[in-house]
Parts: sequence; C-alpha cells; structure tokens
Amino acid sequence: MKIALAQLNYHIGNFESNTAKIISHIQEAKQNGADLVVFAELCVCGYPARDFLEFNEFIELCDESAKKIAEVCIDVACIIGLPTFNHKTEGKDLNNSAYFIEDGKVKAIVNKALLPNYDVFDEYRYFEPSTEFNCIEFKGKKIALTICEDLWNTIENPLYITRPMDSLIHQQPDVMINIAASPFAYNHDEERIAILSDNASRYKLPLLYVNQVGAQTELIFDGGSLVFDNTGKLIDELPYFEENMAYYTLGDDDVITFDHPSTLKTERPADIEQIYQAILLGIRDYFYKSGFKQAILGLSGGIDSAVVCALAAEALGAENVMSVLLPSRFSSDHSLKDAEDLVANLGCKSETIAIRNITEAIETSLHPQFNNLPFNIAEENIQSRSRAILLMAMCNKFGYILLNTSNKSEAAVGYGTLYGDMCGGISVIGDVYKTQVFELARYINRNKEIIPINSIVKPPSAELRPDQKDTDSLPEYDILDKILEGYIEHRLSSAEIIKMGYDEPTVRRVIRLINLAEHKRYQTPPILRVSPKAFGMGRRMPIVGKYLS
Amino acid sequence: MKIALAQLNYHIGNFESNTAKIISHIQEAKQNGADLVVFAELCVCGYPARDFLEFNEFIELCDESAKKIAEVCIDVACIIGLPTFNHKTEGKDLNNSAYFIEDGKVKAIVNKALLPNYDVFDEYRYFEPSTEFNCIEFKGKKIALTICEDLWNTIENPLYITRPMDSLIHQQPDVMINIAASPFAYNHDEERIAILSDNASRYKLPLLYVNQVGAQTELIFDGGSLVFDNTGKLIDELPYFEENMAYYTLGDDDVITFDHPSTLKTERPADIEQIYQAILLGIRDYFYKSGFKQAILGLSGGIDSAVVCALAAEALGAENVMSVLLPSRFSSDHSLKDAEDLVANLGCKSETIAIRNITEAIETSLHPQFNNLPFNIAEENIQSRSRAILLMAMCNKFGYILLNTSNKSEAAVGYGTLYGDMCGGISVIGDVYKTQVFELARYINRNKEIIPINSIVKPPSAELRPDQKDTDSLPEYDILDKILEGYIEHRLSSAEIIKMGYDEPTVRRVIRLINLAEHKRYQTPPILRVSPKAFGMGRRMPIVGKYLS
Repeated sequence: MKIALAQLNYHIGNFESNTAKIISHIQEAKQNGADLVVFAELCVCGYPARDFLEFNEFIELCDESAKKIAEVCIDVACIIGLPTFNHKTEGKDLNNSAYFIEDGKVKAIVNKALLPNYDVFDEYRYFEPSTEFNCIEFKGKKIALTICEDLWNTIENPLYITRPMDSLIHQQPDVMINIAASPFAYNHDEERIAILSDNASRYKLPLLYVNQVGAQTELIFDGGSLVFDNTGKLIDELPYFEENMAYYTLGDDDVITFDHPSTLKTERPADIEQIYQAILLGIRDYFYKSGFKQAILGLSGGIDSAVVCALAAEALGAENVMSVLLPSRFSSDHSLKDAEDLVANLGCKSETIAIRNITEAIETSLHPQFNNLPFNIAEENIQSRSRAILLMAMCNKFGYILLNTSNKSEAAVGYGTLYGDMCGGISVIGDVYKTQVFELARYINRNKEIIPINSIVKPPSAELRPDQKDTDSLPEYDILDKILEGYIEHRLSSAEIIKMGYDEPTVRRVIRLINLAEHKRYQTPPILRVSPKAFGMGRRMPIVGKYLS
Repeated sequence: MKIALAQLNYHIGNFESNTAKIISHIQEAKQNGADLVVFAELCVCGYPARDFLEFNEFIELCDESAKKIAEVCIDVACIIGLPTFNHKTEGKDLNNSAYFIEDGKVKAIVNKALLPNYDVFDEYRYFEPSTEFNCIEFKGKKIALTICEDLWNTIENPLYITRPMDSLIHQQPDVMINIAASPFAYNHDEERIAILSDNASRYKLPLLYVNQVGAQTELIFDGGSLVFDNTGKLIDELPYFEENMAYYTLGDDDVITFDHPSTLKTERPADIEQIYQAILLGIRDYFYKSGFKQAILGLSGGIDSAVVCALAAEALGAENVMSVLLPSRFSSDHSLKDAEDLVANLGCKSETIAIRNITEAIETSLHPQFNNLPFNIAEENIQSRSRAILLMAMCNKFGYILLNTSNKSEAAVGYGTLYGDMCGGISVIGDVYKTQVFELARYINRNKEIIPINSIVKPPSAELRPDQKDTDSLPEYDILDKILEGYIEHRLSSAEIIKMGYDEPTVRRVIRLINLAEHKRYQTPPILRVSPKAFGMGRRMPIVGKYLS
C-alpha cells in the first residue's frame, strides 16, 4: 500500500482554497500511484478556527467541502480532518473528526478523544471527546487512526484518564496514522519525536504522522511530518516550515519503505535557527493571508527594531519594507547612524521624520494643565506615542501594516509605552527574550554584517530622556531573562527563584512588574509564538487582582 | 438547623482580605446562632483566577487560607470554595472544590463535576471533573452540595453526559446547597431562577443558592442568591449588586423558613436598570481593586461619552471624574456646548485642550511623505489619536485611569480609531449597543436632565470631517443593532439574517465589517460584560482568516 503524506498550509475559513489544494494533491498523489493520501487535522477549515466553530454555517461549509473532496476519491482513498455534528442527544454537538474516504464515500469516521485545553488550546470549548475506538480496514490492512493529542497522553505525566491506542491495539492494527495540527515552539520538535517514538515502540507498530505547516496569526505550524518504524526509530522526516508531499510503502510485512532520499536530519538545528525560520513564516503568512504586502516599522538604531527590520526584509523582500527614523531631541547621533547603516545594508525603503515639533506642540497644549511640573514618564510617553501616530498615519495613507518591535523581556516587565512602541498589527519578536534577540542578531549576521555591530554591542536604551539606559530601571538582561523564564515558563514562586541564586529584592521587583503590566499586555498585538509559553492566548491572567509576590 | 448565606465581594489573589472577610462573617453568623455559613464558589481565591491556578504557590496559599478559616469553625460549620490538588495519578491535578468544615476540620470535600468551558469560562483548562458524588451529613440532615454548573445541565439542552444530582438523589438528601460564581448578563437572573427552580421541583428538595457579588475586571458578579422550596417556588432572593448575609432555618420537616422580611422582587427590574447597576459596580470595583480613585475621559458632546461620564460620576463621585473637551477644527459649537452643559449638570472636573496645533504639527511633519494627497482616514485618525495622546499624558502625569467610551455597535463594525478613541483602561459601554446607549441615557435622565437632551436627539457623528454623520458609513442604528445581534449573539449566517427581512447588501457589508475589525478588537481594553455575548474572552475569533459572508 502506497501512502502519501501531504503537509500543507491551510487558511482558516478559506474553504475554496483549502478544498482546491486538498483536491489537487489527491489528484497528484493518485497519478503517482498512491492508494491513500493523508492530510492534517482540521485541514478542511484550517486550525484554529476558534469561535467560527460555533456558527452552524461554518460546519455546514466543512461538510460541503468534504463532499467535493469525496468526489475525486475514485481509485484513491484519503484521510481529511474537519469538525462534524455528532447528532447526539447529550454532550456537545461537535466532534473533531477524521474522515476516511474511499470510492467517493466516507467509509469511516474517527473522532478525537483527547482534547487539549491548555496553553493556546481550547478544544474542549467546542468538541465532545470520543469514547469509541475502531480501526479502519483498507486493502487488507488495519489502520489505527488517531488525531494529534490522542497519542500525547504520556506515561510519565498522564493528563487524561484514557488512551485511545490502549483500546485500538486490541484490534491488532498493522499501522498507526496520526493527523495533527501541532504548533511550533523552539523545543517542540524534539518533544514531538520523543513522544511519537514512544508510541511506536510501545505498541510495536510503524507510525505515519502528518502535521500542518503555515502560520495562523500568532500560531506557527512547522510541518516536520514524521515516519517511525515499529521499534520507535525515526526513519523519515518531512521538511520544516514548507509544504511537501512524500510517499511511503507499507509492505506485506508491515514494514514502511520509501524511494526518495531520506530528509532525516542528522542533527537538530539550533533553537535560534528554528526561531528565525518560524518568524519568517509567521510574517509571510500574516501578510499573505490578510491580503497585505507592505510592512512599516520605526527604526531607533537599537537592536530590537534592527532585528525586526532584517526579518521583515527577508520575509517580504526589502522592497516591501518601509523603515522610518523618528529622531527626538534625545536621540543620539550614533543611533541615527546605526539605523541608516542598517537601511543601507538591507536596501529597504526609508524615511526620516523628526518628532520634535510634534512633542513640543503637545507639551505646549498641555502647559496649562502640567504647569511646570517636572519632566517624567508623561513626557517620555509623549515621544513614543508621537512616533506611533506618525507610523499609523503612514499605514492609513499607504496601506502598510505596522510591525511591533517589542521583545519578550520588555513586554514582561511593561518596559514599553501602550499606544506608543507597543503598537502594531503583529508582534514579531514579542516571544523572544532580549538575550535571544542578541542571538538572533548574530544569526542574521552569520554570513555578513547586516545588523550594524554597534547596534549589537552598545548598551540598550529607550532614549526617551538624556543618557537613559535600560539598566537604570531593570536588572542586566542575562539576570532578568532567567527570572522571567522561571516565573513565566515554569510558574515558579519568588521563593523558588530566589533559591536558584537570584537577589531577593530583584526577584520580587521583577515579579511585581510582570503582574502590574498585565493591563498593558492585554492591549498588545498578537505575538508570533516561538516558545512553549508566549504572552497572548497561551497565558491568561487576571488584570485586576492582588498578585503573588 | 440555621443556615447563613454569605454573598460577598472577593478580590482575586488577595488571600489576606478574602480570608479576613470570610472569617468575620463566620464569627458574625455564629453570634447570630447560625449552625452553618455558606460562601460562594472559589471564594478563597476569587473568581476567575485564570492562570494563577497554574502556580503551585497559588494553590498552596488557598490551602493556608482554608486552614485559617477552619480554626474559627468551632460550634459553627462552613462551606467554602477553593481549588485543591487531587493527588491522582491520571488526569489534571486540580479540582474545583468545596470544603465542608466542622469542629475546626475539613469533614467533607465536594468536587465540581460539570466544568463550564464556553463563552468566558475556561474551567476545563484547570480542573479535572469529579465522578464521585456523596451527600454530607450534618446535624441529622443530609446535604446534597453541588458547585454552580453542576445544576446547569438542562433537560432540554444537555451540554454534559452526567448530572450529579441524579447520583446524589439516591442517597435521599434533605436539602440541596449550590455555591456559585455566576456572572451577570441582562437576561441571566431569569435564566438562573428558571434552571434552579427546575432542579428544586425535579428533585423535590429545597435549594439554597449562594452567588458571588462584585466585579473582576470585565466580569460582573451580581449576587442575587436564591432560596427555593421543594416545589421549585422561589421563596427568597438576596439583593443584587451588593454584599449581604441572610439566615434561613431548615426545619425537622425539611421546610425552609426565615424571620427577615422577604426581599423577593415582585417584578424583575428592566434590563436597562440592571445594566446600569452592573456597570456602576464594574467601574467601582475596577478602580477600587486596582488601587485607583480618579477617572479621566474625553467628552465629545455626543451621547456615548456623556453616558460614560454620568456613569463614572455616579460610580466614583463627580469629584473623581476629570472630563476633557478636545475640540478640533471640525467640532461643532453645539457639541462643545452640550459637553459643557453635561459637566455643569454633573459637577465633575473639566479641562479644554484644543487639538488643532497638534494635528497641524503632525500633518506638517508628514507633508514630505503625504505630498498633497487628499484628506482621508489618515487625517481623521490623526485627530482621534492626538486626543488619546493628551488623555494618556494626563493619566501619566496625574494618575488617572482613562475610561474608554466606545459602544458595542462601533466596536462590532470597527467604527473607531485604534490607539485613538479605542484607548482606555476599561471599556464602560463596550457591551452596550448604540440603541441601548440611548435607553441608558434616558434611564440616567429618569428624574432630571443630566445628559443634555441635545446629545440624545442629534444625529450621531464622529466629527472627524465636515458634516460627517455615522449614517454616512453605517446603516441606521436600529437596523445595524439587529443585524449585529443576529451575527454576534445568535451566530446566524447572512442568509438567515436576510431571511429575517434585512437588506442583503447591508447584511453582507455589516458582517464583512465585523470580521475585518477583529484585529482592532484584539487590542481594545477589557469590556464590562453585561450581555450573554460580549467582545473579549467570551468571543474568540481568528484574526487572519477568510470570513463567512
């Protein structure tokens, strides 16, 4: 039996393009002699469709698409993922389903049993979990078909009280197939391989795994579909961050073979390389899927905006990136020079608009109210917000999308101005800690100097008052980032972080800052997620509350 | 047996104040001869604590609070709600629990079985559902204790496949007690009474129901705790939107009696009166719980900002409300006059800051880029964003919180400027359709003219270009709001809404506008929720997707 794994990029709610893409791959696979073509979880509607799943019309459109797809399944079978009505009298009315389609008809339906409802996942919001498990018979083979999380109930940390394969294995299947929509995080590829390998060896079955690829606003699906033998050995791996279709033969001996050169990686790429690739895909799909081409951003001469500019130029083409230098009376000459060098290195478009006349007009207008009170955060924020007004005016006039350039460390402690530098359509490095931003800059410069060395080596500064440095208000970033990681990623208490060797007042101050900034993060743009715990849908905190300390 | 129902206002994560409040009410109830004091669901930590529940320290702090509460339970028992570790080897490690405490010890633990995971609720994200059901014996009576949603699996529309009372009834309980954290929506009191009444009559048991009161950022808990006899008749009702404790006697005949004058309402208050009360509590608790006193807002002379200003003055005191008039060259004389009349009627503080110099400075700075391109949305938004800069500068200088004045109709169709009039710490009327804003204005004026009649009767206008009217871009609000309600509240398709008698191009255009505005709503402040379907956590839509039409 020849099986094609189709790792494709879907668009949420775009039934026309998703259906056309699925059909064309079925036809191509059929021409290449495939008996079965396997697509990813919820491929018909895209993932995550969120509350569109609560619209009956949305589910009906999925059903219509499935009918169109079934029509082409003559002399070739396919597995597709879609939400379906279950018509049960109790429980939720939807299932997260896989259709096995053969001879133009739906021959079997498998429903997902384990519904992830943590971090960015909300599947229990929509779906009823399945409690029935049956193998699918096809061309003399028994297929144990499961959907994503169904294989993720680990032995060490069982999050659920059932395990679908423990039921299916009693029906003596020949092969496991798992269809998934598993989003990227920099450590997720290794975790995925380990858990799937464990399944293959535990059940002594070969395993074919198909993931989605492509970004859906903040979530980036990295592809990297996988094939294991019945000892749990990884025998093939589809490319990451791009579409692909590959063919495998399940022999009479239930051994999987393939003709193409293995794309198995000999070593895992470094985290920072993965993050780089993920962000490029995230930017590209955000623009492509929302019908925009041109990005704009403010360049300060600092490392954050430089990295974002370089990423945008790589993702969209330098000709589609407008960088704007917005100097104030506190901007240093070297910052302007660093920004100009970057523009020259990248070849992107650039404008310079000084903000002094604007901030002076605002301060003059506020003179009766402010009445010679000393310069403070109010005047600092006026600068940041004046820049945002100019950038947004350019967006409104010319059709750009503004890229947000805040990093995760700043977003964590609220070191940014709401409606100022926290503006944007999408946050490019909002899930990248400052120490990782330095790594990204060095990675971008791996072949030649793109980001001016001076932007990398000078002490970070917001330049909103004379001689300001980030370290005036914050600990050094290597210390700050470790505290942030402990609190955000690992949900440690201050006592536990202090025990790791960090200064008590610093730890308490940082955690206090994190919690005080919830109201700011509530209003920030969606953040491209590259870590296991990003701000946004994956981390849901109260705004008004008294916080842990 | 004398039972006290304690309907209190908790503060998320404020263990000190929550515990002190619970203890003082136990002591008061004991002095008044109570045998048992019943508190609301998750009263120890406040609801919803969201991802604080993922911090082990947070759960440990709940446990410590429970120990302190247990110490005072001598000669009086209590029921409190808190999250607990279940120490099971499979499934999630937390339960949403109720402790029955007697003689200084936890005598029984009840865990919630039905975990709401729709709309604003995410309980399956944190908790493992219970599958064990046992009555509690106390002073010769058997109590069937359940937690909120446990009684909400209706016969007509069973969302869950279990019903805890169907198990508990076999143990022949004498009384039902349900502890809840049930947030307000304008139609929710009647629904709550109907469902609980149905339980009392179905199981032929009296029912005591305790709800939380108080606002937690966007969610407003309205109290209104309820007592039913064993025929399902409502016999008493605690006040709405305020703290209260009331006493009931469960006699030897299992009949509930009480000494105080019944506070049972003879007729349900009008929706708009409930919305008004809910918003006042929402504003008050947002400021009180975040430690702020003073609000600021921009007054345009229009009805939205006038209504918000009146609500804020009532909630916080007129002396704590700073209203700012921010006229542009397009502001009409009558708008300024209407705003000034409002300020005079309310007696709140007021400043006037013209924005013309600022918008001119911005437009002059952008002249090289804009290069005489015609006036369009870019210049309109510059005005709105200039106002936001001034208001935020006032916040930063003087410690105000900015009140957002967008209504639900505008928020729905994106008729507002991101980083402009969409700014604010909390959105006061973002869940109130424009037609309801008119109702609110008339309700506020029920005794005397507070909101100038002219603000109510003149055609709505953003005044961002000469002679602009809302109806230039939008249908009349009575039509628009019906289409919005169909799509947002009832998830109808365009075809279904058209069938209700609305013009096809209008319906399609409105639905398109709703979906195109998702990226704007993603970045808006939290919205005080007063309807069954508010924007925010209760409505989670993809940003990048191709939309239903």
